Amino acid sequence: MSTARGRFIAFEGGEGAGKSTQAKLLAEALRALGFSVVMTREPGGTPGAEAIRNLLLNPPGGEWTAEAEALLFAAARADHVAQLIRPALARGDWVICDRFVDSSRAYQGGAGGLGDDAILSLHAFGSDGMRPDRVILIEGDEASLAQRLATRGAISDAIEGRPASYHRAVADAFGNIAQADPSGFVPIDGIGAPEDVHRRIMTAIADLTAGEAA
Amino acid sequence: MSTARGRFIAFEGGEGAGKSTQAKLLAEALRALGFSVVMTREPGGTPGAEAIRNLLLNPPGGEWTAEAEALLFAAARADHVAQLIRPALARGDWVICDRFVDSSRAYQGGAGGLGDDAILSLHAFGSDGMRPDRVILIEGDEASLAQRLATRGAISDAIEGRPASYHRAVADAFGNIAQADPSGFVPIDGIGAPEDVHRRIMTAIADLTAGEAA
Repeated sequence: MSTARGRFIAFEGGEGAGKSTQAKLLAEALRALGFSVVMTREPGGTPGAEAIRNLLLNPPGGEWTAEAEALLFAAARADHVAQLIRPALARGDWVICDRFVDSSRAYQGGAGGLGDDAILSLHAFGSDGMRPDRVILIEGDEASLAQRLATRGAISDAIEGRPASYHRAVADAFGNIAQADPSGFVPIDGIGAPEDVHRRIMTAIADLTAGEAA
Repeated sequence: MSTARGRFIAFEGGEGAGKSTQAKLLAEALRALGFSVVMTREPGGTPGAEAIRNLLLNPPGGEWTAEAEALLFAAARADHVAQLIRPALARGDWVICDRFVDSSRAYQGGAGGLGDDAILSLHAFGSDGMRPDRVILIEGDEASLAQRLATRGAISDAIEGRPASYHRAVADAFGNIAQADPSGFVPIDGIGAPEDVHRRIMTAIADLTAGEAA
C-alpha cells in the first residue's frame, strides 16, 4: 500500500488518439513503482455515472439537445467526483481517468458551440470545479487517427459518429484549452508505437512520482 | 382543433397535494371548452426525460449528491421543453404540466439547500429560463397531506421517502417562491373534495380562457 499522497491524472484527446491504451500502460507503470492506482473513465466510473453514460451514448428519444447533453455530462461527473475520485485521492491512491472536464469543454463547449464559460459553470456547480493534477493531452495527425478508428470497426455511439468537421473542431478546442493553461496540460505526440508514446508520458509526469515511491 | 394561442399551465405543490388529479380535471374541462390540450409531467414527458426520471427515482448507486440530482432534473427539463412543450405551444395546444422548474427551486434549491440562484442558473442554461403562463400552487394542511400519502400505500421513490422535515421545508420554499411572484403564481386551497378544488382552479385561470374558446 502506498503512503504517498494520491495524484489525479486525466487523459484527454479526440476519438482514436490512444487514450485508453496509454491510461492502462501508465497505471501498470505506476503500480510497478509501488503506487496504489484507481483507473476510471468518463462519462462513467460509478454505477450512477455509468447509467448516465448509457443515456448519453444511446439517447432514448433521438438526439439530446446540446444543453441537455452538457447537463448530463456534468451530472455524471458530479457523481464520479463525489463517490469515486475524491475518496480515492483521500485514501492516498492515484486516480487515472480516461477523459474528464476538458472533454466537455472541447466537445460540448467548443465543437458543440455552448462556450467554455457555460461548461466551466456547470463544473463549478456540480464538482466544485475540481482540476486534475495533470492533464495528458494526446495529439495525433488526422490520418493516423482515422486509421485507428477504422480498425475499431463500426462506429460505436452517438458522439463518435458525428461528422469529421465536428472532430476537427474538438481537436482545435483541445489545443486552445491546453495553450491557455501550460502548467496543467502536457501535450503528448501520440504518433508511433504505444511503448514510445508511453515513454513520453512517463517523462511528462516524472516530477509527480519523484521521491514519492512507496 | 383550437385556433387560439396555446398556454402553459404548471401544477406545483408537495407530495399528496392532489396535483395529478387536478391536472387531469383541468385538462378535461379545457377540452370541453374546445381547446387542444397536452398533459405532461416532470421529471419526464419525453422518452429521454422519462429515462432520466427513472435514474432520479431509482438511483443506481445509492443516493445522488444534491448537485448531481439538480443537474439531472435540469437535463430532463431541457429535453422536455425542447422536444415536447415548445413544439406543442407553437402548434397552438395548451400544455398542462404536473410539476415544472418551481419544483426544482422548492426541493433542490430550498429544502435541498442548493439555493434559488443555482437552480435558476441551470434552468437559464438548459431551457432558456422558460416560465409557465401560470403556476397553480396547491396548498394543503399537513394532516390532510399525510392522510393522502398514507392511502397511497408504500412510499414509492427516493424523493417521496425523505423525512417530514424535508417536506415541510419544501412547502415553505413553495410559499416563498409564490409570494415573490404574485402575478405568475396562484395559490389554491387544496383542502376539500376534488371537484371543489377544481372549481377554484377554473376561477383562477378564467382570464386565460376568456374569449379564446375554439
